[in-house]
Amino acid sequence: MSDEPDPFSGSDYGPVLIIGAGLVGASVGCALTEAGIEVHLRDQVPSHARVAAGRGAGSVEPIDPEAVALVVVAVPPRVLAPVVSAALDEFANAVVTDVGSVKGSVLRDLAARGLELRRYVGSHPMAGSHLAGPVTARPDLFTDRTWVIAPHATATPGAIETVTRLATISGANPVVMDAEEHDLAVAAVSHLPHAVSAMLAAGLTETKPAHLQLAGQGVRDVTRIAAGDPELWDQILTANAPAVADQLAALSTRLGELAERLAEQRPVDDLLATGVAGTRAIPGKHGRAQTEYARMIIEIPDAPGSLARFFTDAGAAGVNVEDISIEHDPVREVGWLQVSVRPELAPDFSAAMSDRGWHLHEG
Amino acid sequence: MSDEPDPFSGSDYGPVLIIGAGLVGASVGCALTEAGIEVHLRDQVPSHARVAAGRGAGSVEPIDPEAVALVVVAVPPRVLAPVVSAALDEFANAVVTDVGSVKGSVLRDLAARGLELRRYVGSHPMAGSHLAGPVTARPDLFTDRTWVIAPHATATPGAIETVTRLATISGANPVVMDAEEHDLAVAAVSHLPHAVSAMLAAGLTETKPAHLQLAGQGVRDVTRIAAGDPELWDQILTANAPAVADQLAALSTRLGELAERLAEQRPVDDLLATGVAGTRAIPGKHGRAQTEYARMIIEIPDAPGSLARFFTDAGAAGVNVEDISIEHDPVREVGWLQVSVRPELAPDFSAAMSDRGWHLHEG
Repeated sequence: MSDEPDPFSGSDYGPVLIIGAGLVGASVGCALTEAGIEVHLRDQVPSHARVAAGRGAGSVEPIDPEAVALVVVAVPPRVLAPVVSAALDEFANAVVTDVGSVKGSVLRDLAARGLELRRYVGSHPMAGSHLAGPVTARPDLFTDRTWVIAPHATATPGAIETVTRLATISGANPVVMDAEEHDLAVAAVSHLPHAVSAMLAAGLTETKPAHLQLAGQGVRDVTRIAAGDPELWDQILTANAPAVADQLAALSTRLGELAERLAEQRPVDDLLATGVAGTRAIPGKHGRAQTEYARMIIEIPDAPGSLARFFTDAGAAGVNVEDISIEHDPVREVGWLQVSVRPELAPDFSAAMSDRGWHLHEG
Repeated sequence: MSDEPDPFSGSDYGPVLIIGAGLVGASVGCALTEAGIEVHLRDQVPSHARVAAGRGAGSVEPIDPEAVALVVVAVPPRVLAPVVSAALDEFANAVVTDVGSVKGSVLRDLAARGLELRRYVGSHPMAGSHLAGPVTARPDLFTDRTWVIAPHATATPGAIETVTRLATISGANPVVMDAEEHDLAVAAVSHLPHAVSAMLAAGLTETKPAHLQLAGQGVRDVTRIAAGDPELWDQILTANAPAVADQLAALSTRLGELAERLAEQRPVDDLLATGVAGTRAIPGKHGRAQTEYARMIIEIPDAPGSLARFFTDAGAAGVNVEDISIEHDPVREVGWLQVSVRPELAPDFSAAMSDRGWHLHEG
């Protein structure tokens, strides 16, 4: 390593080989390529690597194995350990990392193979999408996301630094956490929510269509992530089975307490209040406290140009819209636009928009 | 009742007394007032009725009890039955309805009081918000929402018609469903999701802050509704306790099966696939099949005027944006705008926006 390298520069970094050209692998390739790093791509399905290359993720040309400085393994959870193992063997001078969602099981599997792991450091970028192919790759996928670096006792400082710089060059914020701790964390904040959302959604398959007609936004929100790829999530949940099972047991206890109280017609407001406290415990985006914005509802004709007029007028009012969402009403051919602005700006914004013919409701 | 009244006109309707000037009661008042109907407001907290009147929900002036044609009871679940009972007594010529989230318990409670219920018909507009006061009232709260009418065997046809017209005049779509059926439906699509979301969120209060730093959009979505008022939800869940308990038991069975398979390292992909099927079973907004739109990501400078420029250019491209959302990046002072358009329009839209200097990624 050079003296005090700029962690955001790639001038002394690479070449990098990415194995697995799905969304995450190809997006790493795009980010590194943008930083001026030589990237090579390999995928079990050669056309995936070619599509990723076409998206600016790197080259599909072969590379001298001796020259590879870093291998990024971005394959499905179940095959992580054998692919990492083969990479350590094939690329004798390279640091090897993986970007899998579960870290302890890979490490245990590698150790069980009797491998020497000084050049391996696992990691996990907290970014992704339900869209899984290289066609969705983008260089900014990791921008300001957390990227967990999970070193183990025998990893060299140089290997840890190489993987940490992978995160920073990709625009992410590296967070060091050991593998067991990482797996407990994602069991609580990602795997349990997915499992619960999926089982709740599964129950809807046995709900009468007439009953489903009463579904509102709430059940849609709670079950949104249940639409994720069952094969991928099967691999994630089974790889982190002990921690997920502990989380499921704790949730079952809470649900059992709730059911028992309801059966006995006893109040449940304290249990629900703990839930409210839990929603406030989640940090805001980018780790900051959640901001409360003033929300307003506006009726917008459901036609090209309407949103442009609205935002032109909002811009003329000098107010930055912090968040927006649309709900359509195809029967009346209007949309309901909900916008959020800083609360202290809301009264003037409302008045200025009223002068321009937009009627804003508090919402 | 007149011959073939226009159900959307209020010319022969009223006067109406609304008891309880929260969001739902005051919004009913606003909708009826807009339709030209005489509305009076009453609330245990007189200032609430005055605020609602100030929002256009009606008058706080007293009305001759003999003259009232319809009483709408919009009070918390626990006091619905006594307030409905008192209203039947006080307003001898009026039809009485309530807008509570649970219908069977009110009906049983009223029957247990030995009341003659020919003039009572329960109902439930499927609209609301976590914002509960009259200041958030709006005449369009019920527009195109489902409004369940839950008649019972002894209600008169005239009373049923009066309550059905309340829904249509308010802009809602009336759906007739008996009280027990309604309560089973909302247990599945509303009460269980709320209970599960709340208990999942409650678990986050025991999650380490370092672990919560890894929270992404998924857990935020699943726990969003858990922020609802614990006191109100306590009343809703306890009023519908048997149906909610049945739903909780069915969910527990699914979660138990999932936990057992994970403990035995057996695959769970079929359980997760049933969850995917469940997300597809929910009807789209307004009861139509869900449309798959093409989604694109655009970087937008985080400053007034940027959205206006974007939507002006999008309007010039002749494409209607179907959905939008923003994610901020305060560090880099940009926003990521995600827009959805009809898939067949996406390539031309992308090309047209590119000509205007906007780089759209598939997202």
